Amino acid sequence: MILILRPDITDDQLVVVEDRLESLGVHVHRARGAERTVLTLDGDEELLRSAQLEALSGVERLVATQKPYKLASRDYREERTTIPVGRAVVGGRRVVVMAGPCSVESRAQCFTIGEAVARAGATVFRGGAFKPRTSPYSFQGLGQEGLEILAEVRDRTGLAVITEVMDTRDVALVCEYADILQIGARNIQNFSLLNEVGKARKPVFLKRGMMTTISELLMSAEYVMANGNEQVMLCERGIRSFDTTLRNTLDLSAVPVLQGLTHLPVIVDPSHGVGDWRFVAPMARAAVAAGADGLMIEVHNTPETAFSDGKQSLLPKRFAASMAEMRKVARAIGRTL
Amino acid sequence: MILILRPDITDDQLVVVEDRLESLGVHVHRARGAERTVLTLDGDEELLRSAQLEALSGVERLVATQKPYKLASRDYREERTTIPVGRAVVGGRRVVVMAGPCSVESRAQCFTIGEAVARAGATVFRGGAFKPRTSPYSFQGLGQEGLEILAEVRDRTGLAVITEVMDTRDVALVCEYADILQIGARNIQNFSLLNEVGKARKPVFLKRGMMTTISELLMSAEYVMANGNEQVMLCERGIRSFDTTLRNTLDLSAVPVLQGLTHLPVIVDPSHGVGDWRFVAPMARAAVAAGADGLMIEVHNTPETAFSDGKQSLLPKRFAASMAEMRKVARAIGRTL
Amino acid sequence: MILILRPDITDDQLVVVEDRLESLGVHVHRARGAERTVLTLDGDEELLRSAQLEALSGVERLVATQKPYKLASRDYREERTTIPVGRAVVGGRRVVVMAGPCSVESRAQCFTIGEAVARAGATVFRGGAFKPRTSPYSFQGLGQEGLEILAEVRDRTGLAVITEVMDTRDVALVCEYADILQIGARNIQNFSLLNEVGKARKPVFLKRGMMTTISELLMSAEYVMANGNEQVMLCERGIRSFDTTLRNTLDLSAVPVLQGLTHLPVIVDPSHGVGDWRFVAPMARAAVAAGADGLMIEVHNTPETAFSDGKQSLLPKRFAASMAEMRKVARAIGRTL
Amino acid sequence: MILILRPDITDDQLVVVEDRLESLGVHVHRARGAERTVLTLDGDEELLRSAQLEALSGVERLVATQKPYKLASRDYREERTTIPVGRAVVGGRRVVVMAGPCSVESRAQCFTIGEAVARAGATVFRGGAFKPRTSPYSFQGLGQEGLEILAEVRDRTGLAVITEVMDTRDVALVCEYADILQIGARNIQNFSLLNEVGKARKPVFLKRGMMTTISELLMSAEYVMANGNEQVMLCERGIRSFDTTLRNTLDLSAVPVLQGLTHLPVIVDPSHGVGDWRFVAPMARAAVAAGADGLMIEVHNTPETAFSDGKQSLLPKRFAASMAEMRKVARAIGRTL
Repeated sequence: MILILRPDITDDQLVVVEDRLESLGVHVHRARGAERTVLTLDGDEELLRSAQLEALSGVERLVATQKPYKLASRDYREERTTIPVGRAVVGGRRVVVMAGPCSVESRAQCFTIGEAVARAGATVFRGGAFKPRTSPYSFQGLGQEGLEILAEVRDRTGLAVITEVMDTRDVALVCEYADILQIGARNIQNFSLLNEVGKARKPVFLKRGMMTTISELLMSAEYVMANGNEQVMLCERGIRSFDTTLRNTLDLSAVPVLQGLTHLPVIVDPSHGVGDWRFVAPMARAAVAAGADGLMIEVHNTPETAFSDGKQSLLPKRFAASMAEMRKVARAIGRTL
Repeated sequence: MILILRPDITDDQLVVVEDRLESLGVHVHRARGAERTVLTLDGDEELLRSAQLEALSGVERLVATQKPYKLASRDYREERTTIPVGRAVVGGRRVVVMAGPCSVESRAQCFTIGEAVARAGATVFRGGAFKPRTSPYSFQGLGQEGLEILAEVRDRTGLAVITEVMDTRDVALVCEYADILQIGARNIQNFSLLNEVGKARKPVFLKRGMMTTISELLMSAEYVMANGNEQVMLCERGIRSFDTTLRNTLDLSAVPVLQGLTHLPVIVDPSHGVGDWRFVAPMARAAVAAGADGLMIEVHNTPETAFSDGKQSLLPKRFAASMAEMRKVARAIGRTL
Repeated sequence: MILILRPDITDDQLVVVEDRLESLGVHVHRARGAERTVLTLDGDEELLRSAQLEALSGVERLVATQKPYKLASRDYREERTTIPVGRAVVGGRRVVVMAGPCSVESRAQCFTIGEAVARAGATVFRGGAFKPRTSPYSFQGLGQEGLEILAEVRDRTGLAVITEVMDTRDVALVCEYADILQIGARNIQNFSLLNEVGKARKPVFLKRGMMTTISELLMSAEYVMANGNEQVMLCERGIRSFDTTLRNTLDLSAVPVLQGLTHLPVIVDPSHGVGDWRFVAPMARAAVAAGADGLMIEVHNTPETAFSDGKQSLLPKRFAASMAEMRKVARAIGRTL
Repeated sequence: MILILRPDITDDQLVVVEDRLESLGVHVHRARGAERTVLTLDGDEELLRSAQLEALSGVERLVATQKPYKLASRDYREERTTIPVGRAVVGGRRVVVMAGPCSVESRAQCFTIGEAVARAGATVFRGGAFKPRTSPYSFQGLGQEGLEILAEVRDRTGLAVITEVMDTRDVALVCEYADILQIGARNIQNFSLLNEVGKARKPVFLKRGMMTTISELLMSAEYVMANGNEQVMLCERGIRSFDTTLRNTLDLSAVPVLQGLTHLPVIVDPSHGVGDWRFVAPMARAAVAAGADGLMIEVHNTPETAFSDGKQSLLPKRFAASMAEMRKVARAIGRTL
């Protein structure tokens, strides 16, 4: 940590600052420049972060030199984390594709889509049983019945299953059925929920929120990991910007940036990222080229009667074509898919 | 609802669209212009919103003519909602001030601050017992002990008490102690939690998220109200913009905009809005001038040793001076404080 | 300046860094902490800023300790700058109101509006002769004829006149007619134009761009001042955020923040800030309460046939009512208007 | 155009609206729904857009059904525009790479870099002679001397040359030396400059501003084209979002979105997009995979002593490696590079 003092700090104020640092057990290196004094602090970073030093008179600001996350950092683990899920391994050389409908609507729908995406090469099936909807009057998901359908899809197709959990009270139930626990974008700073899935024994898939910085996303991963669950995947799914041409702004630079900061696998969801099926395929190719470890893509056999997100869902045949394209790009950069 | 068709829609596609609308029980008015056809739809707006009409071939877009919220709308209730809380009434001519520390730290701290803010004219005491912290290693709040301290502050000072609830499992507990249930900015789209506080019999205070639109904030209020709890207050506390000079960008225009759309009271939290005590007083004055029904302000007797948010907390004497300023502005616009 | 080195910097890299700093004539204070080394640099800040030090291997980042602007800073001039314009003084205790139509449309229109706003207490008349329009097919302004009309308004009403200049080639012409040269939001980083008005002998009014940070706005002022023109006013007119409920998001916290950083007067334009006349009056009151030195407000006698910005223009009678409100708020905070 | 009326519009207000529309020569189709009336308007869209209809009492809002740009639209020209530049053709099957330093610093520097990028397969040389710098104290470019150096690079290497023009007064001069006129991000809504390059006989390269929507970018192209110059290229170079991890947020979805709306070629500048050389190569690959027609990349032989943008410049050898990667990705999607 570095503490930058104000040019006009008084001697009395400086004494108060130094006494406070001493009481925190910090070793201080003082560099007195021509215009101002800067203190380099050796001590417990976490303690210093919480110590409200910027509220002291004469202090201009505190500059962190360490990342606020530890377990999620590449300093904690140099090699990349790999997470086995069904017959796939997330985080390895092979790019993993997770596909399926936005909502679990019925057995028939899920079986049809599940078989189609498995045939095209996906290894994980996605589908929402608990749906976070902006309106209380929209379809809220089939709940436990949806979870049962997902388990049946796994039995029939061999696909692993990922589904969202929204409530701390549902974590145990969802764990009974799902292979991966998804935390939605709107719950990415629901710390109670992060603590709860951190205690679960299933991999956790964290969707970056519309307003979540890279650092905040890693802190949310840290919450899960600090509870003992180190099987965490991060997902870029579009952030909110000033431009409303598309539903969101897909931030693909998050892929190499995150891979530089953390050992955790990074997935991209182009469906939510663009919100319009016409742009899913080019952004899926781009995500692979940027180095994503996986893709999450919405697929529906009858988008125009879907319960949700019809506009951004690919038809099964378009999904298969997109898979073929992505496979070529993966090969071009030395990976498989 | 208005459905704008693409200029190149085929007759076959148009038949599919009209069949679909008929199956939804919609009465259609067709306006065929020179370049394109527009359909005006009379039917269940909620059904139309969910019907994925934009996924149909030949459809360009759906334009909503009604607000997606009903109970929160001024169409539902013309007169402004007033919410009695302790000896205050939120939503009336008198501007209500809620003040106190970010976190409940100890009995002594809360008693000192509570007495100071009561003396200065606040009528509600704020303090967090459950704290949503970005880092799992930061102070997470005193929990139930904090709630007990809050109740004691109420007993000693006569102030009503507002505190945050973060977990569906804690709602019943917090209801035992608090007069107002606060939903934090990061949980504003935690729909499970909104449903749960919607079933509670205590007023709910919704903090707008850092990237929540005005319409989304009202939809979150709708969740609470649809569960039977119509005692909802809305709070602007700063949004996230590109400019990082301050912690957030306080969107004061939300005050008149919300008052035009909803009958619910609108509160402003300048402390989080600016994140720096030096700018709290001018923004508090501005909030009153803009017509806010209340203010939430962080006050701490020793900001430099606070457990959280020290930098943005006012000292009690500065809070008292700010109250005097706000009172003059309130009077200038025909209100009291 | 502070240079934070990477924890893994090698001795060879450190030698390169220190040689480079020596060649720049910098005096270095080295603070070697337990985990990393930090260098405090005494030298020409401008030189260091441009020296691409972050491109050196082993360097993590450069942290500036001085503001990048000098002449615009309160360190350069402690007392507030006051700018006499016609019979008004911008930056004094009296809040100055500039009002008028978006575009100069005709003599009759300008005379009518000019007389109305003068009667209501405005002291500066605004009106665009050169109009920056998003579409090349929209009305682009009357040009020189518009300037002549503005001069006639000044003659008839005694109001000073402010108008926009968009092209380096027009600066001399606009100077012949206007009392204040306005730089529009879209030209706030048109550095050629800033240099040119910096050489003019008329006060300059800088409108913050939709995505201009506080620091960038001050750097644009610095451009003008570095050319010898220190008569600069800054104007907050709404920034662009994710929320599209209104045309822009009026950032009123810019008022106290700028007043803390610079000696230049700060004006607020609520008309562009909200883009809807219904919200202009409350935000005008709020701007005064926040401490703005002036207001710029669009007024039109027939908004529904205006050439531009009709929706956000106040009718003269509503402007007069708004003036009365603002006057009361000004008095409540110890100013006049 | 569609005009949505308010549910509470009075008969008198409706008469005023219809009279106004009649005076504008509009043919009106009225659809009277159960709750509200909607008018579909056939008439001059440009006229309707400017007619301030939203300022009429009883009108809720105007919904555009046509794009505000004409010449830039795919409705104007179905086939993709190709622009021959030196030995390259921008907009064809071959992805064009433009590379070089941020600033023209010296003959030696430009010759070294020019030869290196030509060898690696670039066909256009970039380099700034006029530099838009945030600070008036930073290096502002070599001006005409820089232009002469660029012409010499073309002579020696056969590369075409692109450089920025910042001032209407410099357009003729820059045209004498450059093959492509670049308009920088900060001047993207400098309409005087757009008009001036629209009259020039050289292709124009428009960099999307940090705050420019897709639609606004196309309107800027429209300005150039409306002046008679249809040789326009569009460049995505990163927008400004809430996340400050990188210099900008590269919006790659702009590539397929723009290609759906316009016939003009779309280029990506990953160097400014990320602002850090370590992330340029993955984003360059991603841009090719997304379908970009060209790339603009900053290359410098000694980034640590560059006059500007050292941190984001690739060394020549890293640029060559990145070219090899991009070439493979181009081939994977059926293009060359």
